[in-house]
Amino acid sequence: MGILRFSYRSELLSLTTNITVCYPTASLTTSLGYQDPHAEVKGKKAYRPGMKFQTVYLLHGGGEDDTVPYRYTQLEQFAERNMVMLVSPSVNDSLYANTKYGFKYFDYVTQELPVVVQSLFASAPGRSNTFAVGLAMGGNGALALGLKRPDLYEAVVDLSGGIGMTLDRVGYMESLDWEFPIVRNTLPGKDEYAGSEHDLRSCAEEIIAGGKQAPAFFIGVGSEDFIRDRVYNDYRVLDELGLNVSYEEAPGLGHDYGFWNLYLDKALSTWLPLKRTPIYGDE
Amino acid sequence: MGILRFSYRSELLSLTTNITVCYPTASLTTSLGYQDPHAEVKGKKAYRPGMKFQTVYLLHGGGEDDTVPYRYTQLEQFAERNMVMLVSPSVNDSLYANTKYGFKYFDYVTQELPVVVQSLFASAPGRSNTFAVGLAMGGNGALALGLKRPDLYEAVVDLSGGIGMTLDRVGYMESLDWEFPIVRNTLPGKDEYAGSEHDLRSCAEEIIAGGKQAPAFFIGVGSEDFIRDRVYNDYRVLDELGLNVSYEEAPGLGHDYGFWNLYLDKALSTWLPLKRTPIYGDE
Amino acid sequence: MGILRFSYRSELLSLTTNITVCYPTASLTTSLGYQDPHAEVKGKKAYRPGMKFQTVYLLHGGGEDDTVPYRYTQLEQFAERNMVMLVSPSVNDSLYANTKYGFKYFDYVTQELPVVVQSLFASAPGRSNTFAVGLAMGGNGALALGLKRPDLYEAVVDLSGGIGMTLDRVGYMESLDWEFPIVRNTLPGKDEYAGSEHDLRSCAEEIIAGGKQAPAFFIGVGSEDFIRDRVYNDYRVLDELGLNVSYEEAPGLGHDYGFWNLYLDKALSTWLPLKRTPIYGDE
Amino acid sequence: MGILRFSYRSELLSLTTNITVCYPTASLTTSLGYQDPHAEVKGKKAYRPGMKFQTVYLLHGGGEDDTVPYRYTQLEQFAERNMVMLVSPSVNDSLYANTKYGFKYFDYVTQELPVVVQSLFASAPGRSNTFAVGLAMGGNGALALGLKRPDLYEAVVDLSGGIGMTLDRVGYMESLDWEFPIVRNTLPGKDEYAGSEHDLRSCAEEIIAGGKQAPAFFIGVGSEDFIRDRVYNDYRVLDELGLNVSYEEAPGLGHDYGFWNLYLDKALSTWLPLKRTPIYGDE
Repeated sequence: MGILRFSYRSELLSLTTNITVCYPTASLTTSLGYQDPHAEVKGKKAYRPGMKFQTVYLLHGGGEDDTVPYRYTQLEQFAERNMVMLVSPSVNDSLYANTKYGFKYFDYVTQELPVVVQSLFASAPGRSNTFAVGLAMGGNGALALGLKRPDLYEAVVDLSGGIGMTLDRVGYMESLDWEFPIVRNTLPGKDEYAGSEHDLRSCAEEIIAGGKQAPAFFIGVGSEDFIRDRVYNDYRVLDELGLNVSYEEAPGLGHDYGFWNLYLDKALSTWLPLKRTPIYGDE
Repeated sequence: MGILRFSYRSELLSLTTNITVCYPTASLTTSLGYQDPHAEVKGKKAYRPGMKFQTVYLLHGGGEDDTVPYRYTQLEQFAERNMVMLVSPSVNDSLYANTKYGFKYFDYVTQELPVVVQSLFASAPGRSNTFAVGLAMGGNGALALGLKRPDLYEAVVDLSGGIGMTLDRVGYMESLDWEFPIVRNTLPGKDEYAGSEHDLRSCAEEIIAGGKQAPAFFIGVGSEDFIRDRVYNDYRVLDELGLNVSYEEAPGLGHDYGFWNLYLDKALSTWLPLKRTPIYGDE
Repeated sequence: MGILRFSYRSELLSLTTNITVCYPTASLTTSLGYQDPHAEVKGKKAYRPGMKFQTVYLLHGGGEDDTVPYRYTQLEQFAERNMVMLVSPSVNDSLYANTKYGFKYFDYVTQELPVVVQSLFASAPGRSNTFAVGLAMGGNGALALGLKRPDLYEAVVDLSGGIGMTLDRVGYMESLDWEFPIVRNTLPGKDEYAGSEHDLRSCAEEIIAGGKQAPAFFIGVGSEDFIRDRVYNDYRVLDELGLNVSYEEAPGLGHDYGFWNLYLDKALSTWLPLKRTPIYGDE
Repeated sequence: MGILRFSYRSELLSLTTNITVCYPTASLTTSLGYQDPHAEVKGKKAYRPGMKFQTVYLLHGGGEDDTVPYRYTQLEQFAERNMVMLVSPSVNDSLYANTKYGFKYFDYVTQELPVVVQSLFASAPGRSNTFAVGLAMGGNGALALGLKRPDLYEAVVDLSGGIGMTLDRVGYMESLDWEFPIVRNTLPGKDEYAGSEHDLRSCAEEIIAGGKQAPAFFIGVGSEDFIRDRVYNDYRVLDELGLNVSYEEAPGLGHDYGFWNLYLDKALSTWLPLKRTPIYGDE
């Protein structure tokens, strides 16, 4: 793989921020030249100016940043095998939300980041080329991306979500009272929540009511994860509302990188409907 | 600016190697949308999928790597002001040559690197969009790029070159006897040199003889630089051969970042015939 | 110089965060061996297990992170010449404060960071070895460090401060009404401010009243900086209160890296009472 | 974990080079204060100025650099669980040798690197705190470190070595004729090899003859690895010479990160005789 960390100043955040990007370069070769990018040399595809990759926005968990999932798993190799590009923003425990205290991380991730990434890197535009996968806090982030912007993502994967934005209003209200203050510091209080931009159940109902195309949802959690019931509940509500959702529980696994290393592989290799090939400009 | 360090495995080198890339992102905005990329908002140009930048290959000196010129100068700001993208390979004291001991850095920098960079990043293809600027060992590297591949570079800048490939055959022979063994370890000995791929004078003569288009050459050196005479000599030979070359000597300056910080600015802001604007796909 | 970026999870922030550290390695040599670290070889001092460096906490400005001051100035070289170690945290526009929304950046920078840095890196402990220098938002951060923890810093430098914590209560109240919402999102409102931990005037008065040893304060600003009056005002109040403070205004310079590149050099080379030598364990 | 990449100029290499260092920071806390570093808070040990860690030099393979093993495995977590610090140099396919073409990587790794790392980072000095683990080309590198400098390493691990320095003189001679030119470009030819600094069998015989203390050797390889016989042969010679060596073959595994991820865990968690605790200054 090729990997990089890009540091630039985001306009929407008004912050210098980091993005990790990885490309499946071990499967690419310059030796094919420009004549026939679709040919293969020893199983490799051509580098070619103007080529693009399907893109998975890979969302880190709470307390982490854009580097951690790459460091704690074998994620680069999973992306390599599936010929997909990964992009990870760093969201500073914002729950991937437009926070009460000013930083608009949701708008950043859904509006600014794709334009920047498609402008500066070889990321294929278009809903059918765009996916989101998140773990822990990033799992809820992925749900929020898919439910609030169903026009942008072909499919989303929530691994062990449960903290932050959720489809379960009762669960949300409880989370405002947790000893752990992040939800109440970041998202609206009891009175402002229902129907707000953070109320994912409203977003899901709007998709149904509006007859909008929704992403495919995939949800996975370890059977021993302390947050298992909340994750299951998000699945249950999506399923009851009639959205296209799969759920898988991993027996014996918990809320840690033992589970995530396995399921990031599964998400990229099995769940997501990826093309698993570069996209050349003549297509 | 936006800056990144890309780590990937080069095919030609068969090494995991680093590339520093910087983009003039402080002059870009997502707020213009896609409708009119040529409009300006507060002096900024639009991010737009498919946009490209003119590209300067910025070549580090001996004992350095791809990060050092960025760390020791205000180079990011010079690139920003001139709306150009910078790309720096890391060449491990190879003199930017195909070394005797196996690593083909010249082929890497001129053949593989541009294809990779134009495939994965927003680097505009084409000779008229491609420049090379080097300092110290990288100055000779830039000369070599321009003389051996005049088809690839619109203009090249040599700042304080003098070590490695040169237009002065007598000087080259002397450098084989230096206490400092890098030239004799890397490049051909006395008997194999003349007419070899490393003999820049032959390359220059071929350009003239073949009536090929040559890049514009710009050479700068500090008057107090220990290597000043060798740099001047490269200028003199280029000029005598009738190539398009400018020479400037900075009074009182030496072989260090005092000189390079000033002259990297001059090279990007004044010498190179840059467009100083992004290139959008509809152009 | 040697430079690194350390990524680890801060306990107080409960975030994976980045720290830039640079060491004056160009002035060090392994060739001296262990026998006589005080000898010099070609002007270099010895690497020696157990050696320590005086440490300057270098505080970035608003919208920046730990990397920006190093990228936009020649800071590594200024540190090299003064044989000092630099440490920069990344504070996500928190004004170096314990924010209303939960992240305790002030405690992180003053309590956790020094312990971590002195445990994992060669940073000399003790007030006489510890300094803070900040630019823009980091200038006010440096003032806050010196006034709230006068026991920790020998001297602090504020370059172009003005946003966030200040000695001017009237100015603070005005800043709550700025269109720019960062101050009111981060720090206390009008009613809670006076006497709070964020009220630097109270802190300064306590130092005087308690007869505590204060750091030496150095304040610099460009004459054309839009924030010049607020910076001058912080100087004026410190001076009126009888603290040890110097002020310098740079004619014709503004709120940008033209000024900061010059004055970071001045701060490290002239203002701060540095030893300009490593500290070996036998001293 | 905490991880960093340090870029500095090596004296012996005369190159700006990268070192990856990781620390087991997830197991450390600042909340214990300085009074009792041996106490534990929720299973964590204290950060404390002057603390040190046992250090494993982790040697990357051919075509890789200091970052690759961390990116392709879960190595940070293995180091975390075993409370050990990892240090990885980047050796540019030099076979960890003093190369024919001038770069003295062996001297760099064994003489300069430990002094630099112990001077700038919290690496415990002394043979009993120092280990080497390598994979592929790095496996032979680890053998060479242990056999040529038995005074420096308590134990070394060779995972899937086989290329470069070896204990098998016949195999070495054959490798000079490989299509793959790295051995003959880097190491001595047939006539100069026997008894040279690169002839590991001589080094092993000297240890025995001199009655020197040797490190413990651990060798592992996948049963399906193409290089399996060469690895086994290195084991066989060490064993015949009477050195302390273990050998383990992993059924069904090959020369890839499937094997290395498992066996790096095994090496750190089981094979190496680590203390698995920080070392505080009062011990």
